[in-house]
Amino acid sequence: MASSVNQFDTATAVAADGSCAIEPGWDIGGNANGGYLLALLARHVLAVAQREDPITITGHFLAPGTAGPVTAAATVLKRGRLFTTASGSLLRDDRLLLHAVAACGEIDAFQGPTFVDAAPPKLPPIEECVRRPAGNGFVPVPLMDRLDVRLHPDSAGFASGPKSGVAEVAGWFAFADGRPIDPLALLLVCDAFPPAVFNLELPGGWVPTVEYTVHVRGRPAPGPLRCVFRSQFVQGGMLNEDGEVWDSAGHLVATSRQLGLLARG
Amino acid sequence: MASSVNQFDTATAVAADGSCAIEPGWDIGGNANGGYLLALLARHVLAVAQREDPITITGHFLAPGTAGPVTAAATVLKRGRLFTTASGSLLRDDRLLLHAVAACGEIDAFQGPTFVDAAPPKLPPIEECVRRPAGNGFVPVPLMDRLDVRLHPDSAGFASGPKSGVAEVAGWFAFADGRPIDPLALLLVCDAFPPAVFNLELPGGWVPTVEYTVHVRGRPAPGPLRCVFRSQFVQGGMLNEDGEVWDSAGHLVATSRQLGLLARG
Repeated sequence: MASSVNQFDTATAVAADGSCAIEPGWDIGGNANGGYLLALLARHVLAVAQREDPITITGHFLAPGTAGPVTAAATVLKRGRLFTTASGSLLRDDRLLLHAVAACGEIDAFQGPTFVDAAPPKLPPIEECVRRPAGNGFVPVPLMDRLDVRLHPDSAGFASGPKSGVAEVAGWFAFADGRPIDPLALLLVCDAFPPAVFNLELPGGWVPTVEYTVHVRGRPAPGPLRCVFRSQFVQGGMLNEDGEVWDSAGHLVATSRQLGLLARG
Repeated sequence: MASSVNQFDTATAVAADGSCAIEPGWDIGGNANGGYLLALLARHVLAVAQREDPITITGHFLAPGTAGPVTAAATVLKRGRLFTTASGSLLRDDRLLLHAVAACGEIDAFQGPTFVDAAPPKLPPIEECVRRPAGNGFVPVPLMDRLDVRLHPDSAGFASGPKSGVAEVAGWFAFADGRPIDPLALLLVCDAFPPAVFNLELPGGWVPTVEYTVHVRGRPAPGPLRCVFRSQFVQGGMLNEDGEVWDSAGHLVATSRQLGLLARG
Protein backbone atom coordinates (compact mmCIF):
# COMPACT_ATOMS: atom_id res chain seq x y z
CA MET A 1 0.00 0.00 0.00
CA ALA A 2 2.79 2.43 0.82
CA SER A 3 3.77 4.60 -2.10
CA SER A 4 7.45 5.29 -2.69
CA VAL A 5 7.08 8.97 -1.86
CA ASN A 6 4.68 9.56 1.00
CA GLN A 7 2.64 12.69 1.50
CA PHE A 8 3.70 13.13 5.12
CA ASP A 9 7.41 12.95 4.29
CA THR A 10 7.01 15.51 1.51
CA ALA A 11 4.97 17.78 3.74
CA THR A 12 7.55 17.72 6.55
CA ALA A 13 10.67 18.13 4.38
CA VAL A 14 13.05 20.77 5.75
CA ALA A 15 16.25 22.00 4.07
CA ALA A 16 19.46 22.11 6.10
CA ASP A 17 19.07 25.88 6.54
CA GLY A 18 15.58 25.43 7.98
CA SER A 19 13.67 26.45 4.85
CA CYS A 20 10.41 24.57 4.55
CA ALA A 21 6.75 25.06 3.77
CA ILE A 22 3.39 24.47 5.34
CA GLU A 23 1.90 22.31 2.61
CA PRO A 24 -1.71 22.79 1.58
CA GLY A 25 -4.13 20.00 2.41
CA TRP A 26 -3.10 19.44 6.06
CA ASP A 27 -5.54 22.02 7.34
CA ILE A 28 -8.88 22.55 9.02
CA GLY A 29 -10.58 25.48 7.33
CA GLY A 30 -7.31 26.90 6.04
CA ASN A 31 -5.27 26.61 9.25
CA ALA A 32 -2.74 23.78 9.33
CA ASN A 33 -3.28 21.07 11.93
CA GLY A 34 -1.19 21.65 15.03
CA GLY A 35 0.18 18.12 15.10
CA TYR A 36 1.37 18.48 11.52
CA LEU A 37 3.06 21.80 12.32
CA LEU A 38 4.78 20.25 15.34
CA ALA A 39 6.00 17.31 13.23
CA LEU A 40 7.36 19.72 10.61
CA LEU A 41 9.28 21.67 13.25
CA ALA A 42 10.36 18.49 15.06
CA ARG A 43 11.97 17.15 11.90
CA HIS A 44 14.31 20.13 11.87
CA VAL A 45 14.91 19.95 15.61
CA LEU A 46 15.89 16.28 15.24
CA ALA A 47 18.24 17.09 12.38
CA VAL A 48 20.01 19.77 14.39
CA ALA A 49 20.07 17.55 17.48
CA GLN A 50 21.38 14.63 15.39
CA ARG A 51 18.85 12.31 16.99
CA GLU A 52 16.24 9.94 15.58
CA ASP A 53 13.11 10.41 17.64
CA PRO A 54 11.24 13.04 19.67
CA ILE A 55 10.84 11.32 23.06
CA THR A 56 9.01 14.22 24.68
CA ILE A 57 8.07 17.39 22.87
CA THR A 58 6.00 20.39 23.92
CA GLY A 59 4.64 22.93 21.47
CA HIS A 60 3.13 26.35 22.16
CA PHE A 61 0.94 27.55 19.29
CA LEU A 62 1.32 31.28 18.86
CA ALA A 63 -0.35 32.05 15.52
CA PRO A 64 -2.34 30.04 12.96
CA GLY A 65 -0.32 28.54 10.11
CA THR A 66 -1.66 28.93 6.59
CA ALA A 67 -0.05 27.21 3.60
CA GLY A 68 3.16 28.69 2.31
CA PRO A 69 6.88 29.10 3.02
CA VAL A 70 8.11 29.15 6.60
CA THR A 71 11.46 28.82 8.37
CA ALA A 72 12.38 26.37 11.11
CA ALA A 73 15.11 27.22 13.61
CA ALA A 74 16.54 25.00 16.34
CA THR A 75 18.99 25.40 19.23
CA VAL A 76 20.61 22.58 21.18
CA LEU A 77 20.28 23.19 24.94
CA LYS A 78 22.14 20.10 26.15
CA ARG A 79 23.72 17.06 24.56
CA GLY A 80 23.50 14.08 26.90
CA ARG A 81 23.89 10.36 26.57
CA LEU A 82 20.21 9.40 26.43
CA PHE A 83 18.83 12.72 25.26
CA THR A 84 19.68 15.80 23.34
CA THR A 85 17.40 18.60 24.51
CA ALA A 86 16.64 21.34 22.04
CA SER A 87 14.24 24.19 21.41
CA GLY A 88 12.79 25.15 18.07
CA SER A 89 10.74 27.83 16.38
CA LEU A 90 8.64 27.92 13.25
CA LEU A 91 8.52 31.39 11.75
CA ARG A 92 6.90 33.17 8.84
CA ASP A 93 9.00 36.22 8.16
CA ASP A 94 9.48 37.51 11.71
CA ARG A 95 6.23 36.12 13.04
CA LEU A 96 6.54 33.18 15.44
CA LEU A 97 3.90 30.55 14.68
CA LEU A 98 5.06 27.76 16.96
CA HIS A 99 7.70 27.31 19.66
CA ALA A 100 8.74 23.88 20.89
CA VAL A 101 11.10 22.23 23.33
CA ALA A 102 12.01 18.57 23.01
CA ALA A 103 14.13 15.82 24.50
CA CYS A 104 15.28 13.83 21.50
CA GLY A 105 16.80 10.35 21.49
CA GLU A 106 16.38 6.90 20.03
CA ILE A 107 13.22 5.18 21.23
CA ASP A 108 14.62 1.69 20.53
CA ALA A 109 17.41 2.32 23.05
CA PHE A 110 15.02 2.43 25.99
CA GLN A 111 14.58 -0.84 27.88
CA GLY A 112 13.04 -1.75 31.20
CA PRO A 113 10.24 -3.58 33.01
CA THR A 114 6.61 -3.03 32.04
CA PHE A 115 3.81 -2.10 34.46
CA VAL A 116 0.87 -0.84 32.42
CA ASP A 117 -2.35 -0.12 34.26
CA ALA A 118 -4.55 0.53 31.22
CA ALA A 119 -5.73 -1.21 28.05
CA PRO A 120 -6.29 -0.14 24.45
CA PRO A 121 -9.72 1.31 23.76
CA LYS A 122 -12.26 -1.30 22.66
CA LEU A 123 -13.11 -0.45 19.06
CA PRO A 124 -15.36 -2.12 16.51
CA PRO A 125 -13.56 -3.38 13.38
CA ILE A 126 -12.34 -0.56 11.16
CA GLU A 127 -15.04 -1.16 8.56
CA GLU A 128 -17.74 -0.64 11.22
CA CYS A 129 -16.26 2.69 12.31
CA VAL A 130 -17.13 6.08 10.86
CA ARG A 131 -14.58 7.70 8.57
CA ARG A 132 -14.06 11.29 9.59
CA PRO A 133 -15.14 13.29 6.56
CA ALA A 134 -13.12 16.07 4.92
CA GLY A 135 -16.12 18.34 5.34
CA ASN A 136 -18.49 18.28 8.30
CA GLY A 137 -20.94 20.86 7.09
CA PHE A 138 -19.42 23.73 9.06
CA VAL A 139 -15.83 23.92 7.94
CA PRO A 140 -13.86 21.84 5.40
CA VAL A 141 -11.21 19.54 6.90
CA PRO A 142 -8.88 18.72 3.97
CA LEU A 143 -6.57 17.00 6.49
CA MET A 144 -9.00 14.10 6.49
CA ASP A 145 -8.19 13.32 2.86
CA ARG A 146 -4.55 12.72 3.92
CA LEU A 147 -5.55 10.52 6.84
CA ASP A 148 -7.81 7.56 7.36
CA VAL A 149 -9.36 8.33 10.73
CA ARG A 150 -12.25 6.03 11.66
CA LEU A 151 -14.29 6.99 14.69
CA HIS A 152 -15.98 4.65 17.10
CA PRO A 153 -19.71 5.08 16.33
CA ASP A 154 -20.26 6.11 19.97
CA SER A 155 -17.79 8.98 19.45
CA ALA A 156 -19.19 10.19 16.13
CA GLY A 157 -22.48 11.60 17.36
CA PHE A 158 -21.21 15.16 17.36
CA ALA A 159 -21.27 15.13 13.55
CA SER A 160 -24.13 12.86 12.63
CA GLY A 161 -26.42 12.23 15.56
CA PRO A 162 -27.03 12.91 19.23
CA LYS A 163 -23.95 13.90 21.20
CA SER A 164 -22.82 11.23 23.64
CA GLY A 165 -22.50 13.67 26.54
CA VAL A 166 -19.13 12.10 27.30
CA ALA A 167 -15.96 14.03 26.43
CA GLU A 168 -14.32 11.10 24.72
CA VAL A 169 -13.40 10.36 21.12
CA ALA A 170 -11.94 7.00 20.11
CA GLY A 171 -11.03 5.45 16.81
CA TRP A 172 -8.49 4.06 14.38
CA PHE A 173 -5.67 6.03 12.73
CA ALA A 174 -3.79 5.34 9.51
CA PHE A 175 -2.33 7.46 6.74
CA ALA A 176 -4.55 7.48 3.65
CA ASP A 177 -1.53 6.58 1.48
CA GLY A 178 -0.47 3.71 3.75
CA ARG A 179 2.70 5.39 5.04
CA PRO A 180 4.08 3.48 8.05
CA ILE A 181 3.64 5.30 11.35
CA ASP A 182 6.95 6.19 12.99
CA PRO A 183 7.63 8.22 16.14
CA LEU A 184 7.63 11.51 14.19
CA ALA A 185 4.17 10.74 12.81
CA LEU A 186 2.85 10.17 16.35
CA LEU A 187 3.06 13.95 16.84
CA LEU A 188 0.40 14.24 14.14
CA VAL A 189 -1.63 11.24 15.31
CA CYS A 190 -2.22 12.71 18.76
CA ASP A 191 -3.79 15.84 17.26
CA ALA A 192 -5.66 14.25 14.34
CA PHE A 193 -8.99 13.47 15.98
CA PRO A 194 -11.91 15.83 16.49
CA PRO A 195 -11.92 17.42 19.95
CA ALA A 196 -13.41 15.13 22.59
CA VAL A 197 -15.50 18.05 23.89
CA PHE A 198 -17.45 18.09 20.62
CA ASN A 199 -19.46 15.32 22.30
CA LEU A 200 -20.53 17.63 25.14
CA GLU A 201 -23.41 20.09 24.96
CA LEU A 202 -21.16 23.10 24.68
CA PRO A 203 -20.90 25.99 22.25
CA GLY A 204 -19.38 24.51 19.08
CA GLY A 205 -16.44 25.69 17.07
CA TRP A 206 -12.71 25.58 16.96
CA VAL A 207 -10.78 24.61 20.11
CA PRO A 208 -7.48 26.52 19.90
CA THR A 209 -4.55 24.67 21.41
CA VAL A 210 -2.40 26.64 23.82
CA GLU A 211 0.10 23.88 24.65
CA TYR A 212 0.48 20.35 23.37
CA THR A 213 2.87 17.73 24.74
CA VAL A 214 3.50 14.28 23.29
CA HIS A 215 5.45 11.50 24.99
CA VAL A 216 6.64 8.88 22.50
CA ARG A 217 6.68 5.63 24.46
CA GLY A 218 7.40 3.05 21.76
CA ARG A 219 7.87 2.41 18.06
CA PRO A 220 4.53 1.38 16.53
CA ALA A 221 4.19 -2.11 15.07
CA PRO A 222 2.86 -2.06 11.49
CA GLY A 223 -0.85 -1.48 11.09
CA PRO A 224 -3.49 1.01 12.14
CA LEU A 225 -3.40 2.55 15.61
CA ARG A 226 -6.10 2.51 18.27
CA CYS A 227 -6.51 5.96 19.79
CA VAL A 228 -8.58 7.51 22.54
CA PHE A 229 -8.83 11.13 23.66
CA ARG A 230 -10.59 12.37 26.80
CA SER A 231 -11.26 15.78 28.36
CA GLN A 232 -11.83 15.25 32.06
CA PHE A 233 -11.47 18.85 33.12
CA VAL A 234 -13.44 21.52 31.30
CA GLN A 235 -13.47 24.62 33.50
CA GLY A 236 -12.57 28.27 33.41
CA GLY A 237 -12.87 28.40 29.63
CA MET A 238 -10.04 25.90 29.31
CA LEU A 239 -9.87 22.18 28.84
CA ASN A 240 -7.37 19.38 28.90
CA GLU A 241 -7.37 16.65 26.27
CA ASP A 242 -5.41 13.53 27.13
CA GLY A 243 -4.65 10.98 24.44
CA GLU A 244 -3.45 7.40 24.37
CA VAL A 245 -2.20 5.72 21.19
CA TRP A 246 -1.85 1.94 21.03
CA ASP A 247 -0.34 -0.11 18.22
CA SER A 248 -1.56 -3.30 16.55
CA ALA A 249 0.46 -5.41 18.98
CA GLY A 250 -1.40 -3.89 21.95
CA HIS A 251 1.46 -1.69 23.13
CA LEU A 252 1.09 1.92 24.18
CA VAL A 253 3.21 3.97 21.77
CA ALA A 254 2.31 7.54 22.72
CA THR A 255 0.47 9.67 25.23
CA SER A 256 -0.50 13.27 24.70
CA ARG A 257 -1.98 16.11 26.68
CA GLN A 258 -3.08 19.47 25.46
CA LEU A 259 -4.41 22.57 27.13
CA GLY A 260 -7.02 24.16 24.90
CA LEU A 261 -9.36 27.10 24.99
CA LEU A 262 -13.06 26.48 24.81
CA ALA A 263 -14.89 28.15 21.95
CA ARG A 264 -16.70 31.28 23.14
CA GLY A 265 -20.22 30.55 21.93
CA MET B 1 -0.44 30.34 61.21
CA ALA B 2 1.14 32.19 58.28
CA SER B 3 4.31 34.00 59.29
CA SER B 4 4.95 37.43 57.86
CA VAL B 5 7.90 36.19 55.79
CA ASN B 6 7.31 32.77 54.31
CA GLN B 7 10.04 30.32 53.50
CA PHE B 8 8.78 29.70 49.97
CA ASP B 9 8.75 33.40 49.08
CA THR B 10 12.28 33.84 50.39
CA ALA B 11 13.48 30.74 48.56
CA THR B 12 12.03 31.89 45.23
CA ALA B 13 13.17 35.52 45.42
CA VAL B 14 14.80 36.72 42.19
CA ALA B 15 16.42 40.11 41.61
CA ALA B 16 15.45 42.13 38.54
CA ASP B 17 18.66 41.06 36.79
CA GLY B 18 17.85 37.39 37.36
CA SER B 19 20.26 36.85 40.25
CA CYS B 20 18.91 34.31 42.71
CA ALA B 21 19.90 31.29 44.73
CA ILE B 22 18.88 27.70 45.19
CA GLU B 23 18.23 27.81 48.92
CA PRO B 24 19.33 24.94 51.12
CA GLY B 25 16.62 22.82 52.67
CA TRP B 26 14.45 22.30 49.56
CA ASP B 27 16.34 19.20 48.52
CA ILE B 28 16.31 15.45 48.43
CA GLY B 29 19.76 14.20 49.30
CA GLY B 30 21.41 17.47 48.30
CA ASN B 31 19.62 18.00 44.98
CA ALA B 32 16.89 20.63 44.98
CA ASN B 33 13.36 19.42 44.31
CA GLY B 34 12.39 19.94 40.68
CA GLY B 35 9.11 21.64 41.49
CA TYR B 36 10.93 24.15 43.67
CA LEU B 37 13.44 24.87 40.90
CA LEU B 38 10.63 25.37 38.39
CA ALA B 39 8.85 27.76 40.77
CA LEU B 40 12.06 29.73 41.25
CA LEU B 41 12.54 30.08 37.50
CA ALA B 42 8.83 30.75 36.92
CA ARG B 43 8.91 33.68 39.29
CA HIS B 44 11.47 35.39 37.05
CA VAL B 45 9.61 34.38 33.88
CA LEU B 46 6.42 35.95 35.29
CA ALA B 47 8.27 39.15 36.19
CA VAL B 48 9.69 39.49 32.69
CA ALA B 49 6.34 38.58 31.13
CA GLN B 50 4.57 41.04 33.46
CA ARG B 51 1.92 38.44 34.25
CA GLU B 52 0.57 37.03 37.51
CA ASP B 53 0.30 33.28 37.04
CA PRO B 54 1.87 30.39 35.15
CA ILE B 55 -1.14 28.86 33.35
CA THR B 56 0.87 26.11 31.63
CA ILE B 57 4.57 25.58 32.17
CA THR B 58 6.93 22.85 30.98
CA GLY B 59 10.37 22.30 32.46
CA HIS B 60 13.23 20.17 31.14
CA PHE B 61 15.68 19.23 33.88
CA LEU B 62 19.20 19.22 32.50
CA ALA B 63 21.46 19.01 35.56
CA PRO B 64 20.90 18.59 39.32
CA GLY B 65 20.69 21.80 41.32
CA THR B 66 22.64 22.02 44.54
CA ALA B 67 22.30 24.95 46.93
CA GLY B 68 24.03 28.15 45.94
CA PRO B 69 23.84 31.14 43.58
CA VAL B 70 22.24 30.74 40.16
CA THR B 71 20.97 33.06 37.44
CA ALA B 72 17.52 33.08 35.88
CA ALA B 73 17.01 34.36 32.34
CA ALA B 74 13.74 34.81 30.46
CA THR B 75 12.68 35.76 26.94
CA VAL B 76 9.21 36.78 25.85
CA LEU B 77 8.13 34.85 22.75
CA LYS B 78 4.72 36.45 22.26
CA ARG B 79 2.59 38.96 24.10
CA GLY B 80 -1.10 38.20 23.57
CA ARG B 81 -4.33 39.22 25.21
CA LEU B 82 -4.90 36.12 27.35
CA PHE B 83 -1.32 34.89 27.51
CA THR B 84 2.25 36.03 27.37
CA THR B 85 4.37 33.10 26.26
CA ALA B 86 7.96 33.06 27.42
CA SER B 87 10.93 30.75 27.78
CA GLY B 88 13.34 30.71 30.66
CA SER B 89 16.60 29.19 31.78
CA LEU B 90 18.19 28.61 35.16
CA LEU B 91 21.98 28.64 34.96
CA ARG B 92 24.93 28.16 37.24
CA ASP B 93 27.86 29.87 35.59
CA ASP B 94 27.44 28.61 32.01
CA ARG B 95 25.80 25.35 32.94
CA LEU B 96 22.09 25.06 32.13
CA LEU B 97 20.22 23.39 34.99
CA LEU B 98 16.64 23.87 33.83
CA HIS B 99 14.90 25.16 30.73
CA ALA B 100 11.23 26.08 30.72
CA VAL B 101 8.53 27.42 28.44
CA ALA B 102 5.33 28.88 29.82
CA ALA B 103 2.09 30.55 28.87
CA CYS B 104 1.53 33.13 31.59
CA GLY B 105 -1.68 34.98 32.38
CA GLU B 106 -4.10 35.72 35.18
CA ILE B 107 -5.97 32.64 36.33
CA ASP B 108 -8.88 34.67 37.72
CA ALA B 109 -9.60 36.04 34.24
CA PHE B 110 -10.63 32.63 32.89
CA GLN B 111 -14.36 31.93 32.95
CA GLY B 112 -16.54 29.28 31.38
CA PRO B 113 -18.80 26.28 31.92
CA THR B 114 -17.66 23.36 34.05
CA PHE B 115 -17.71 19.70 32.98
CA VAL B 116 -15.49 17.73 35.34
CA ASP B 117 -15.47 13.95 35.00
CA ALA B 118 -13.42 13.16 38.10
CA ALA B 119 -13.54 13.69 41.86
CA PRO B 120 -10.97 14.53 44.53
CA PRO B 121 -9.15 11.53 45.97
CA LYS B 122 -10.83 10.08 49.03
CA LEU B 123 -8.47 10.72 51.94
CA PRO B 124 -8.72 10.00 55.64
CA PRO B 125 -8.58 13.10 57.88
CA ILE B 126 -5.15 14.74 57.94
CA GLU B 127 -4.39 13.47 61.45
CA GLU B 128 -4.91 9.87 60.28
CA CYS B 129 -2.50 10.26 57.36
CA VAL B 130 1.23 9.62 57.49
CA ARG B 131 3.53 12.62 57.52
CA ARG B 132 6.29 12.14 54.99
CA PRO B 133 9.47 12.18 57.04
CA ALA B 134 12.54 14.28 56.25
CA GLY B 135 14.58 11.08 56.26
CA ASN B 136 13.37 7.74 54.95
CA GLY B 137 16.34 5.66 55.93
CA PHE B 138 17.99 5.78 52.52
CA VAL B 139 18.43 9.44 51.77
CA PRO B 140 17.56 12.57 53.77
CA VAL B 141 14.68 14.66 52.40
CA PRO B 142 15.08 18.09 54.05
CA LEU B 143 12.29 19.36 51.76
CA MET B 144 9.85 17.59 54.05
CA ASP B 145 10.68 19.95 56.90
CA ARG B 146 9.45 22.84 54.72
CA LEU B 147 6.25 21.06 53.75
CA ASP B 148 3.52 19.23 55.58
CA VAL B 149 2.83 16.30 53.26
CA ARG B 150 0.55 13.65 54.76
CA LEU B 151 0.20 10.43 52.82
CA HIS B 152 -2.86 8.23 52.62
CA PRO B 153 -1.90 5.16 54.68
CA ASP B 154 -2.53 2.99 51.59
CA SER B 155 0.12 5.01 49.72
CA ALA B 156 2.73 4.98 52.46
CA GLY B 157 3.67 1.31 52.34
CA PHE B 158 6.79 1.94 50.31
CA ALA B 159 8.41 3.48 53.39
CA SER B 160 6.96 1.62 56.32
CA GLY B 161 5.25 -1.56 55.25
CA PRO B 162 4.32 -3.75 52.31
CA LYS B 163 4.15 -1.95 48.99
CA SER B 164 0.61 -1.59 47.66
CA GLY B 165 1.53 -2.84 44.18
CA VAL B 166 -0.44 0.08 42.75
CA ALA B 167 1.48 3.00 41.25
CA GLU B 168 -0.50 5.61 43.13
CA VAL B 169 0.35 8.06 45.89
CA ALA B 170 -2.32 10.27 47.45
CA GLY B 171 -2.31 12.68 50.34
CA TRP B 172 -2.65 16.16 51.76
CA PHE B 173 -0.34 19.10 51.01
CA ALA B 174 0.33 22.23 53.03
CA PHE B 175 3.35 24.41 53.71
CA ALA B 176 4.87 23.72 57.12
CA ASP B 177 4.84 27.46 57.89
CA GLY B 178 1.21 27.89 56.83
CA ARG B 179 1.94 29.94 53.71
CA PRO B 180 -1.17 30.19 51.52
CA ILE B 181 -0.97 28.15 48.33
CA ASP B 182 -1.09 30.31 45.21
CA PRO B 183 -0.70 29.32 41.56
CA LEU B 184 3.11 29.65 41.72
CA ALA B 185 3.25 27.22 44.65
CA LEU B 186 1.27 24.66 42.66
CA LEU B 187 4.43 24.09 40.59
CA LEU B 188 6.03 22.79 43.78
CA VAL B 189 2.95 20.91 45.01
CA CYS B 190 2.80 18.74 41.90
CA ASP B 191 6.36 17.51 42.47
CA ALA B 192 6.33 17.28 46.27
CA PHE B 193 5.12 13.72 46.75
CA PRO B 194 7.19 10.55 46.64
CA PRO B 195 7.12 8.87 43.22
CA ALA B 196 3.99 6.75 42.74
CA VAL B 197 6.17 3.92 41.40
CA PHE B 198 7.76 3.52 44.84
CA ASN B 199 4.67 1.40 45.54
CA LEU B 200 5.57 -1.07 42.77
CA GLU B 201 8.02 -3.93 43.14
CA LEU B 202 10.72 -2.21 41.14
CA PRO B 203 14.35 -1.37 41.76
CA GLY B 204 14.32 1.55 44.20
CA GLY B 205 16.08 4.83 44.01
CA TRP B 206 15.81 8.25 42.51
CA VAL B 207 13.43 8.80 39.59
CA PRO B 208 15.02 11.58 37.51
CA THR B 209 12.52 13.85 35.80
CA VAL B 210 13.09 14.48 32.11
CA GLU B 211 10.11 16.75 31.52
CA TYR B 212 7.47 18.15 33.84
CA THR B 213 4.37 20.08 32.81
CA VAL B 214 1.87 21.74 35.12
CA HIS B 215 -1.48 23.19 34.09
CA VAL B 216 -2.80 25.67 36.64
CA ARG B 217 -6.58 25.36 36.44
CA GLY B 218 -7.75 27.47 39.34
CA ARG B 219 -6.75 29.55 42.37
CA PRO B 220 -6.81 27.33 45.46
CA ALA B 221 -9.28 28.14 48.21
CA PRO B 222 -7.60 28.43 51.63
CA GLY B 223 -6.67 25.20 53.34
CA PRO B 224 -4.72 22.04 52.61
CA LEU B 225 -4.87 20.45 49.16
CA ARG B 226 -5.89 16.92 48.25
CA CYS B 227 -3.45 15.43 45.77
CA VAL B 228 -3.13 12.19 43.84
CA PHE B 229 -0.35 10.98 41.54
CA ARG B 230 -0.50 7.92 39.29
CA SER B 231 1.92 6.18 36.93
CA GLN B 232 -0.13 4.19 34.45
CA PHE B 233 2.62 3.56 31.95
CA VAL B 234 5.92 2.17 33.15
CA GLN B 235 7.73 0.79 30.10
CA GLY B 236 10.99 1.12 28.24
CA GLY B 237 12.79 2.39 31.34
CA MET B 238 10.51 5.43 31.39
CA LEU B 239 7.36 6.31 33.26
CA ASN B 240 4.67 8.94 33.31
CA GLU B 241 3.37 10.40 36.52
CA ASP B 242 0.07 12.25 36.29
CA GLY B 243 -1.09 14.42 39.15
CA GLU B 244 -4.34 16.04 40.19
CA VAL B 245 -4.53 18.73 42.87
CA TRP B 246 -7.88 19.65 44.42
CA ASP B 247 -8.59 22.47 46.86
CA SER B 248 -10.63 22.52 50.06
CA ALA B 249 -13.71 23.63 48.12
CA GLY B 250 -13.52 20.50 45.94
CA HIS B 251 -12.25 22.27 42.82
CA LEU B 252 -9.45 20.98 40.65
CA VAL B 253 -6.69 23.60 40.77
CA ALA B 254 -3.84 21.89 38.90
CA THR B 255 -2.92 18.88 36.83
CA SER B 256 0.60 17.72 36.19
CA ARG B 257 2.38 15.15 34.07
CA GLN B 258 6.00 14.20 34.12
CA LEU B 259 8.12 11.87 32.07
CA GLY B 260 10.69 10.22 34.31
CA LEU B 261 13.43 7.68 34.05
CA LEU B 262 13.17 4.52 36.06
CA ALA B 263 16.04 3.83 38.42
CA ARG B 264 18.41 1.24 36.98
CA GLY B 265 18.52 -1.36 39.74
